[in-house]
Parts: sequence; structure tokens; C-alpha cells
Amino acid sequence: MAGNSFGKIFKLTTFGESHGSAIGGIIEGCPAGLSLDFEAINFEMQRRKPGQSAIVTQRKEEDEVKFLSGIFDGKTTGTPIGFIIENTDQKSKDYSHIKDIYRPSHADYTYDKKYGIRDYRGGGRSSARETACRVVAGAIAKQLLAGVKITAYVSSVGEMELKQHYSELDFSEIEKNPVRCPNAEMASKMEDYIKSIRKEGNTIGGIVSCVIQNVPIGLGEPVFDKLHAELGKAMLSINAVKGFEYGSGFAGTRMKGSEHNDAFNEDGSTKSNYSGGIQGGISNGEDIYFNVAFKPVATIMQKQETIDNKGNKAEAEGKGRHDPCVVPRAVPIVEAMAALVLADFYLLNKISRF
Amino acid sequence: MAGNSFGKIFKLTTFGESHGSAIGGIIEGCPAGLSLDFEAINFEMQRRKPGQSAIVTQRKEEDEVKFLSGIFDGKTTGTPIGFIIENTDQKSKDYSHIKDIYRPSHADYTYDKKYGIRDYRGGGRSSARETACRVVAGAIAKQLLAGVKITAYVSSVGEMELKQHYSELDFSEIEKNPVRCPNAEMASKMEDYIKSIRKEGNTIGGIVSCVIQNVPIGLGEPVFDKLHAELGKAMLSINAVKGFEYGSGFAGTRMKGSEHNDAFNEDGSTKSNYSGGIQGGISNGEDIYFNVAFKPVATIMQKQETIDNKGNKAEAEGKGRHDPCVVPRAVPIVEAMAALVLADFYLLNKISRF
Amino acid sequence: MAGNSFGKIFKLTTFGESHGSAIGGIIEGCPAGLSLDFEAINFEMQRRKPGQSAIVTQRKEEDEVKFLSGIFDGKTTGTPIGFIIENTDQKSKDYSHIKDIYRPSHADYTYDKKYGIRDYRGGGRSSARETACRVVAGAIAKQLLAGVKITAYVSSVGEMELKQHYSELDFSEIEKNPVRCPNAEMASKMEDYIKSIRKEGNTIGGIVSCVIQNVPIGLGEPVFDKLHAELGKAMLSINAVKGFEYGSGFAGTRMKGSEHNDAFNEDGSTKSNYSGGIQGGISNGEDIYFNVAFKPVATIMQKQETIDNKGNKAEAEGKGRHDPCVVPRAVPIVEAMAALVLADFYLLNKISRF
Amino acid sequence: MAGNSFGKIFKLTTFGESHGSAIGGIIEGCPAGLSLDFEAINFEMQRRKPGQSAIVTQRKEEDEVKFLSGIFDGKTTGTPIGFIIENTDQKSKDYSHIKDIYRPSHADYTYDKKYGIRDYRGGGRSSARETACRVVAGAIAKQLLAGVKITAYVSSVGEMELKQHYSELDFSEIEKNPVRCPNAEMASKMEDYIKSIRKEGNTIGGIVSCVIQNVPIGLGEPVFDKLHAELGKAMLSINAVKGFEYGSGFAGTRMKGSEHNDAFNEDGSTKSNYSGGIQGGISNGEDIYFNVAFKPVATIMQKQETIDNKGNKAEAEGKGRHDPCVVPRAVPIVEAMAALVLADFYLLNKISRF
Repeated sequence: MAGNSFGKIFKLTTFGESHGSAIGGIIEGCPAGLSLDFEAINFEMQRRKPGQSAIVTQRKEEDEVKFLSGIFDGKTTGTPIGFIIENTDQKSKDYSHIKDIYRPSHADYTYDKKYGIRDYRGGGRSSARETACRVVAGAIAKQLLAGVKITAYVSSVGEMELKQHYSELDFSEIEKNPVRCPNAEMASKMEDYIKSIRKEGNTIGGIVSCVIQNVPIGLGEPVFDKLHAELGKAMLSINAVKGFEYGSGFAGTRMKGSEHNDAFNEDGSTKSNYSGGIQGGISNGEDIYFNVAFKPVATIMQKQETIDNKGNKAEAEGKGRHDPCVVPRAVPIVEAMAALVLADFYLLNKISRF
Repeated sequence: MAGNSFGKIFKLTTFGESHGSAIGGIIEGCPAGLSLDFEAINFEMQRRKPGQSAIVTQRKEEDEVKFLSGIFDGKTTGTPIGFIIENTDQKSKDYSHIKDIYRPSHADYTYDKKYGIRDYRGGGRSSARETACRVVAGAIAKQLLAGVKITAYVSSVGEMELKQHYSELDFSEIEKNPVRCPNAEMASKMEDYIKSIRKEGNTIGGIVSCVIQNVPIGLGEPVFDKLHAELGKAMLSINAVKGFEYGSGFAGTRMKGSEHNDAFNEDGSTKSNYSGGIQGGISNGEDIYFNVAFKPVATIMQKQETIDNKGNKAEAEGKGRHDPCVVPRAVPIVEAMAALVLADFYLLNKISRF
Repeated sequence: MAGNSFGKIFKLTTFGESHGSAIGGIIEGCPAGLSLDFEAINFEMQRRKPGQSAIVTQRKEEDEVKFLSGIFDGKTTGTPIGFIIENTDQKSKDYSHIKDIYRPSHADYTYDKKYGIRDYRGGGRSSARETACRVVAGAIAKQLLAGVKITAYVSSVGEMELKQHYSELDFSEIEKNPVRCPNAEMASKMEDYIKSIRKEGNTIGGIVSCVIQNVPIGLGEPVFDKLHAELGKAMLSINAVKGFEYGSGFAGTRMKGSEHNDAFNEDGSTKSNYSGGIQGGISNGEDIYFNVAFKPVATIMQKQETIDNKGNKAEAEGKGRHDPCVVPRAVPIVEAMAALVLADFYLLNKISRF
Repeated sequence: MAGNSFGKIFKLTTFGESHGSAIGGIIEGCPAGLSLDFEAINFEMQRRKPGQSAIVTQRKEEDEVKFLSGIFDGKTTGTPIGFIIENTDQKSKDYSHIKDIYRPSHADYTYDKKYGIRDYRGGGRSSARETACRVVAGAIAKQLLAGVKITAYVSSVGEMELKQHYSELDFSEIEKNPVRCPNAEMASKMEDYIKSIRKEGNTIGGIVSCVIQNVPIGLGEPVFDKLHAELGKAMLSINAVKGFEYGSGFAGTRMKGSEHNDAFNEDGSTKSNYSGGIQGGISNGEDIYFNVAFKPVATIMQKQETIDNKGNKAEAEGKGRHDPCVVPRAVPIVEAMAALVLADFYLLNKISRF
């Protein structure tokens, strides 16, 4: 009820604040007998972790996952996988100046009003540090979905927008640059732009695009739990996300039915794919693709007028180590959430027929 | 698990195919002692029902709700509210021609592949007829949320786009025209356009915008069940929806933090509202506003090449009575789903503090 | 949340009061492609329905199920199965005398205190009439579990107790007598006793025993959702149930480990079965057997001193048509609930291994 | 789905095997602002932990809880409370002899058959060590329920049975003897008996009784989630439990309605309490009382013939440090589970009325 879980069968529940001793989670419903590739899990953690390049926050966290249960001799046992990630670089003092202050466009005000109490250190539960737990679970979900290829990348930073269709992109470029844009030239421009934004103590928004290939047919449940509805919720649950569109998306609203309909080939595949691989909420085997909109990070290194928790005028100025643009580090998180959605529906679909 | 329920506390579960004898649902968790305004429920049903104007499907359904339980002397009793809506104008014969055929961009193919069996009459479970049940529950949710004002309207049809900010609009105009656009001049143009689209046997997409005012502070649960994540899922679960954005949305990705941050007034309200009334997934009392993208309806009155369920070439041509543009009738559905999300969080929030 | 659902994958949600126009429910998660035997469903309904013999309530209900969705050409489609059962013999006037009165050991007082409002006609939601919906769903669950044999029977009425082990009983006797006791001689004594109890305007308790044979190995989930824990909850949710024991049960508390442990045969079966077919919460393939204790029905045809809803002294006297002993009609309900538990775990177990 | 959670609003999810590095859990839905008494939590842990007296297992575990989140300045924050308990005295080598062997009446066989893999060390996930996590959550639930008094005690060991009604007992005696029987004389006899059982390398069953006083009226949800149904499931989910009865229980099956009905006093309380404080599944303010049957522990210090995982004959002999009788240590677990059930319904009941 309290919003700490995602998934029904393959289910992640997380706990932890950015400045407690550890964050962690429990993964339930992972079938028994899956051999885990721990290096692959670690690789995903490295992609998300702070301090990995010059254009992300310089906070230093090892983000080493300790698995506490549910794994025996390297295989899942069918019992819950408990894990923790210690918070090694907490620097709680960085946050004492915001104890009583509501930072603009953060969750300080709403948490205080909702709960009457708030762990103000580093955003507490509202910190994006929680997404590290999602990446752990997503990495395992990816292994469960062997064969399915989930690829996210940065497609825009501010006004800089990658116009190419994903079929024209070389995904092997993504991890070669710190922006995670699969076009080296554009990546370089974006990198320079993010650096200039950081220099002015500002932040900028952007878009992460994601493509899922080799999707089994039949994933998704009709009516409320449509595949794209769960994908949308998954993405919108990531910090700083303001929008989600799949397939033709918002552009599709300007199309006619005769243009938008995807004609079938004789093998059941479709000639076009405005549907984005999903029809009636169920995967049809075509590529699933979607865009996720991220707002600019709220913490800026500039003075802002604000109020304290008594309604007095106050001043807020970012002092911690923050991301000037969140999209490069959001790429593995988008992939992780997509993997969680698919793994859940993949298992559920196994019992859809008598 | 099977995707027929929405909500956790205030929970709707629906059943029914478009061409069975009835559709219906169960509303659980509605607190006891709520006096129901049945005329208000009927009003919402009339807004959604087919045949209400010249620009929507001419299918004739009375869409009269029969409540079977959970109400006594006009008040809710705290027990589940069961209801049915009979399918009076089924005309199943209209659909015999698509028994073995996969209509492009419908759910025919995916249902067959997932379940191995399909009620082909009128789309079966995938028909938007199911949304009538949502409107029933949403109308009750609205009554639970007395004081909260939920207003949806058509803001674009194809390329025709209402550019005004919602604060400049006269919401009392919405129900005065069949398009449900709060600008009479634009509404008239949209109406003409939809008529021309229908005449060519085609369909067109559009956008429904929604504004929620007088929202209590504190609604929404951190992390996975953020208020906007549930709103997004709710909207994406409506038939034909391809995208969702709230607050600054996709446009916000092009903004800097210094522009995007919403400065506080001393009373806790904010000077701007790029956050869209939600911070950290929790309502802050400002207006919530969002856009919902609808694709053009897949059923067009034109011949389309397609395949049958044996992979043979076939021809599909719409023969039923369908909407040339879905957004006018989607307006009450968007409001209903918004009401369901809010009612659920409203109840849940009552137990957030000791 | 509101307690109207049972099951996770194979899930029944019910609605309805005893004196509304209809009761009904929704069955979700039944796999697609199951050919339904409607006569078998009707047979179970007949076993539960009132008026079937001289020792049960003479209330007349046809208890005909109308399926509204989820079934096409006699097969399940994977979409929710909605159904209603009309209340044809309501006689609401029978209950006007208890409008303001709290009947001893009924739910009148607690419903009023909890909800502040109560449908007093025939017990409203607290009536055992709701169990008709369970029998519908249970009958379908039984068909899903083809091969598994679920047999319940009356093993005691008041002090009259069937001492035989179930292996010594002839289950084909059960439906041959109105008590549903598989020993004809004992059945006859019990029948006479129930008639004498009814004559004095009184009621009597009893025990229903249940045996489940040919159970697949592996059903049940460790820790909280152990197979016997769900069976226990299922049985305790039936009206008038006061206790549940399985395997060695309460008698097992007096045994030593050396006596109680079930030694293995080489094929994995066990020589004894004090475990009751469940070890660690998971079925081991041996017979599952358990007892369910039912209290005497609270409605007696005698004057009882009580209070009204203002705390004044009042008198209650049963005037409707009630069961002098609930266990004969409880037999199909116990079987139905057992089938629901097993069907749920049966489906869930299909995804326990990679 | 996978059975690792208990509760809907106030919800505990646990993970961990007896011989992993740690066990732990997440408590969700605890309202914000509850000041925690950590000594009270520790007191409950001490009551459950091994090695506390001469009649329980001599395994040594500190059972110190480390809270990782959800608490700030000694108060709950409304965010999930993550915690771990390290396994300090694992002695995994104790279990190498049972790697391939199925111990009679343990979960070895069923886990292997269900999952195809098993953490054989100390019973893995099926070990009662998991209940330590329940005691943590239960201790917090008790604090949420300030005023409600939950008292469990040992009422029988083998044939030795405490015949007194709970109103005749002095609950302050319970913690004064290692058996946790509130009658000093009987406790002494039970203690001697348990010692003699241990000496012969055997084990014995017993009954834990529980009384809940000062219960708010209105807890419990009608139909499937009746208060006693959830209590029953909670108790049956504890390791080694074979039966549950509340109020008149199995003895009530031999009573007539005229004897069993609880007459009202004018203030709404009842003269007798065969109902056990629950009517129609909802608490009526009277004492709730119930019995929980525990079988003899399966691990005995005697040679038993059994089989290995290839179906060959083998020999099993307990070598670890085990309880000769589980009921003394089960007392705090029964209380913890009762507290979890009540806390959940207590919160849920706050939103039952408009």
C-alpha cells in the first residue's frame, strides 16, 4: 500500500534513505534455479553509480551489493533475495543547512506536510539513491529475460535532440561516451553543453529513449495492467520524470487512422510499427520503444529565495555534489525498470492458458 | 494479477465483453455513510455513452447502471458495490466478418496469441465499452472527493491545437459543444474537421487535457506509487492512449533548473507551477494538470489488407458504428480515472500519521 | 483490502447482500481454454442451496447462476468471469422486526459499530448467502484441478461423532443422505437428532472433515502463505466456523516427535501421515485432511432477551427460515474453499522454477 | 505472491535463511510519528531467542536488530523500516550430514521437489529462525496498539494441560518461569517433563493460548478477511502449528444455540463470551481468546531411517542444538503475529466510514 513495491510476481520492495547506514531491498518471485551473473549485476551498478565521469555528481559511493539470502551456490533458490547497499559517503553535515528549509521543487515541503516528520539529510527517502536498488533487481530481471534486449540511451539534452530513428543508431556507441548517446558527434556536443550548464551552477533536462527487442508475444494483461500502462508507471516512478510516450506517442495524435494502422505481414509481423510493439495492452513481438522525459534537477548551485518550515523567508543554495543533468545516469535505471515490468509479465503469461 | 482491478483501498474491478449480456464491476473500499447522488452518476454516464452527438459512434446503448449491492437507503454501507450495465444494442452479426481476421492495430492478433481463444464480437474484452464501468466508479469517487474539482477537456484534434493555458479557459463551455473543447470557436472548427474525417471513412487522434483543483496536500505515496505515476498508469490504461505528461511535461526537458524550479510563497503555495502540483510524488496543493495523447481509432471505414488467423491474406473493412475521433467521449473517462486515483490516495493518506 | 476477495492468481471477488436483488462475483485468473462443465457447477449449487431436504432451511432460492462474461463457446477466455445469482425469495418483511435490534451472536452489533449503517435484512452482507458465490468459483476451480479429489463430509453433529478414520469410510454414501455423513447408520442418527433440535426451536454445532487426494507435490508457498495457513484462513472465513486443524491437529500436541514423524518410503511417500500431506507449508503428495468446527447457528426459534440500537432492553425471536444445523450445507462450501486454495497454489507453482 | 509478506496496510516482508549472513525484513505502512521504545523491542527478542533457559535450544544468537531506515530521531517517518539480524552462530558444518538426506517431517523433501534446489543448512528458509523478524515487527505493532493487551502463554505440554479459564490466571507469572505457563505449580511440572523428554532425545508438542484485551470495536473485514480468519492464518503460518480455535472452538460444536449465544448487557457488552470477542468477523470489544496447537519438533536426537535425494535408504540423526518443546519460545511469536493482525485491521478500520 505504501508504495515501496513494484511488480506482482517478480516483485521488488525497497527501503532506505540516502543518508541512513544502508539502503536495500527484497526481490520476491524470482524462479528457482536461475544462475546469477554477478559481474553483470555489478556492471549495471557501475553504470548508475555517482562519480563515474566528469558530467555526473562527484559523490563517491562504491554501491557494492551484498546479497543476504535467496541465493545458494550461485543460483536462486526461489526464496526471497534480500540485499543491502551500504551508504559509505554520507556526509550528513552537507545537509544541516536545509534542516528547516523547503528547497524549491524538492519533496521537502510535501513530506513534511504528509508525515509531519522528515529525514532531511540528502532528501531522505525521496533521494534518487533509492534507484540503486532498482538497478540490482533490474539486473536480475534482465538475466531472467535472456534473449530479450533492452537498450536505453540519451536522445536529448535540453534543446539538443537526436533526430535519428533508433534503427539508424549504433547501440554499441552508448557506453563509449559519458552522456550515453549512441551518436558520437551528438554525444560530444551534449557533453560540452552539460559541462557549461554545470559551470553556471545550473541544471538541464533531457529525454531517455528505450528500445526493447526480441520481446515474446503475449506479455501484458488487458484492461488496467496493459503492458504500456505498467511501463508508463514504472518510468514515471523514477525521480524527475515528467512524461512518457510509446510508439507513435504524442505525435500519433496528429495522424489519421489510415496512416497510423500497422498492416500485417503474413507471418503476423507488421509493416510499420506505430503501435510500438503493443496492441490492446499486449506485446505483439515487434520492437517496443518509448521516450521518458526528465526535468532539470532541482538542486542548483545558485541562491534561491525560499521559505523555512515556519513560513519565514529563507535562502537555499545547493552545497552537495549533484548532477547537472540526470539523463546519463538515468539510462540504466530506465532499463532496469523496463526489465522489471517485462519479467513480471513474462512469468504471469506462463499461466494465461490452460 | 489479471489486470481487472484499479486502486488499492478504493478499488474497482470490472468484467465484461462488449457483446456479452452485460458488463459490470465491483467497487470496494468506498467508506460507509456516503450519500450517493444517482443523477450525478447518470450525468457522467450520459457524457460517455455512444450516440450522444453527430460526431460520435451511433451505436445505441442506454448505459443504465443497475446497482446490486452495497447501498442501502441511498447510502453506501461499506460493503462492496456490485453493478451491471446491460448490453442492449449488441448487433453481434456486425462482427461475424472479422471472426477469423486480424484487424490492423486492434487487439485481435495479440489476444489470440496470448489466450488461444478470443471473443471476436466487437473487440470482446478489449473494447472501450469496458470504460463505462470506470465512469460509474469514477462518478462515486468524485462524490467522495467533494470539493476537489476535476476538469478534463479536448485540447487538440489532429493538428488543431488549443494553445491557451488552462487558466485562460472558460470551463463552463466544455459541455456546451459536442467536442468538449472549452473554446467555442476552436470547438466549432474541430467539430467540422471531425465530420470531414468521418466522411472520408477515416479517424483522427487528439489530446485530452485535465486540471485538478483544490487538491488536498499529501496525496501520493513515495517511490513506486507516486501520485503522477498512478495518474500516468490510469490514463495509459484507457484504450488508444499513447502518452502522458504532467506539469512541464516533455517541454520541461528543454528547461534549466533555474527556470523550472517553483519558488515558494510564504504560505507554502508556489509562484510558478512547473511541478504540476506534485513534488516527490506527493500533491502540494497546487493545481495538478496533465495531457493524455490518444491515437486515431483503428477501425476505419476503408478497405485494408490484412491477414486471417491462418496467415492468409484477407481484407478488413470497418462495418460497425465507430467513433471518428475518440477524444470527446474520452473526456469523462479521463476524469473518472483521475477521480479513482485521487480517491484511493485520499483514503490511504488518512492513515499516514500516528 | 476490504476483504471481498480470495486468492491471488485464481481470484474470487464477491458482492451482495442476502436481500438485495442479486449477489454475484468476479473470477479472475482462470486460465483460457478450460472447457466448463455447467452441469457440474449446477450440481454443486444444488448441494448448497436451501430447501434441499427436511433438515435444512426451507427458504426457497433457485440459485441459478448467470454467467455474464469470460466464457465463449463454452470455454474460458482468460478474461474475468462475471456472474450473478438472483435473490428470488427475499421476503424482506421477515426482518422488519429486527431493524433496530441486535440479535445475540449475530453481526448486527459489530456492523453497526463499524460502519454506522447496516442493511438489516437477513443479515445483509454477513449472511451465509454470500457462500453461494464461493460455490460457483469453487466448482470451476475443481474443474481446473481435474484429477485432484476433494471430499468433505459431516463427521460430527453435537456430541455425535464419527470415530472412523477416513480410509475406512465409503465416500459414495455422502450424497445419499441429507446429513452428508458417509456412514449410513450414523447419518440416520444425526438426522433424527437434528430434527429433534429443530423441533425445540434450537440449533446445534458440528464438524465437517475434508480429505484431498491426488494432490500434486509442491503446492503452497513458504513462510506466511503456507498451504495449511491458507486452507485455515479459507475455512475460518466461512460463516460460523470456530476452529481448524489439519493432520494430527490438536491431538498432535500430545505426541512425541518419535511418534509423530512420518517415515519415508523409498519412493518419497510416507509410511504414516501425521503431517496431513503438508511439510513446511508445501504439499508432499500425501492426502491432505483437516477438520472444520462449526458453532450452532445463532438464529434460534426461541425468545431471547437482547438490546436495541439505543441500548434499551428488547426481545429477539427467530422468525425467518433457518438451518437447525449448518454442517450438511457447509460440506460443499468447505470443498469449494479448498478448491480455491489449491487452484491458486497450483497456478502459482507453475512459475516456481526457472 | 511468494508468501513472504504479512498484512495489507501494516505489512511485514521477511527474507533470510537460518545460515545465511543475516535475516531481515521490511515493515511498511507504520504511520509516521510513532516514538519507538527500542528496549521493548529488545525485550521481545530476548523472549524468543535461543539459549535463554535450560529447556530451549542452546544455539547462541544475539538476535540484535539493526534498523537501517524509516526511523529518524527515534520516531517512525512513514517510510519503510528496513532491518537485519545477523546470524552469528551459524555452525554450517552441523548440517553437512543432511545435505542429500530428507529428514522425516521436515521441509527438505518438499522444498527439493518444489524448487529443484535447497539451502540445506539448518532448514534454510523453512527454519523457525525467520520468526525473529516477525517478533521485531510485532513489537512495533504492539506499540502502535498502545492500550491493547496481548498475552500468550503455554497452556499445555503433551498431556499436561492447564484447565483454568484465563480469567483465573495471574499473567504476571508467565515470564517468571522458563515454560511461560502462568501457573507456577504446573509450570514446574511442565519444566521437569520437558527436561525428561530432552534427556531421551525426544520432543513433545503443546498448546499456546492467547488472550487479547481492550480491543477496539470494529476491527476485521467481513467475508474473507474476518478477524479470526486472519488470526488463524497468522498462527498457522508459524512453524509446527497444526490447529487453531477461537472462542468456543471445537468444544462449541457440541453446544446448542441457546447455550452458545452471548446475551447482551445494556452497554453492548455480553454476559458470556463464546464468540471469543468476534462476531461476523469483526471485534465486538470483548476479550479475544484462542488456542494454537504445536506439534512435537521434528528434529529428534534419535536415529531415524529415512531416504536420500536419490531414493536410497539413509539414516538421519539430529546433531544440531534443537528445542525439545517449541511452545515456550513460541509464546512471543504468537503475540507478535496477533499484534500484526490487529495493527493492520486497526489502521484499515480508520477509513471504514465517510
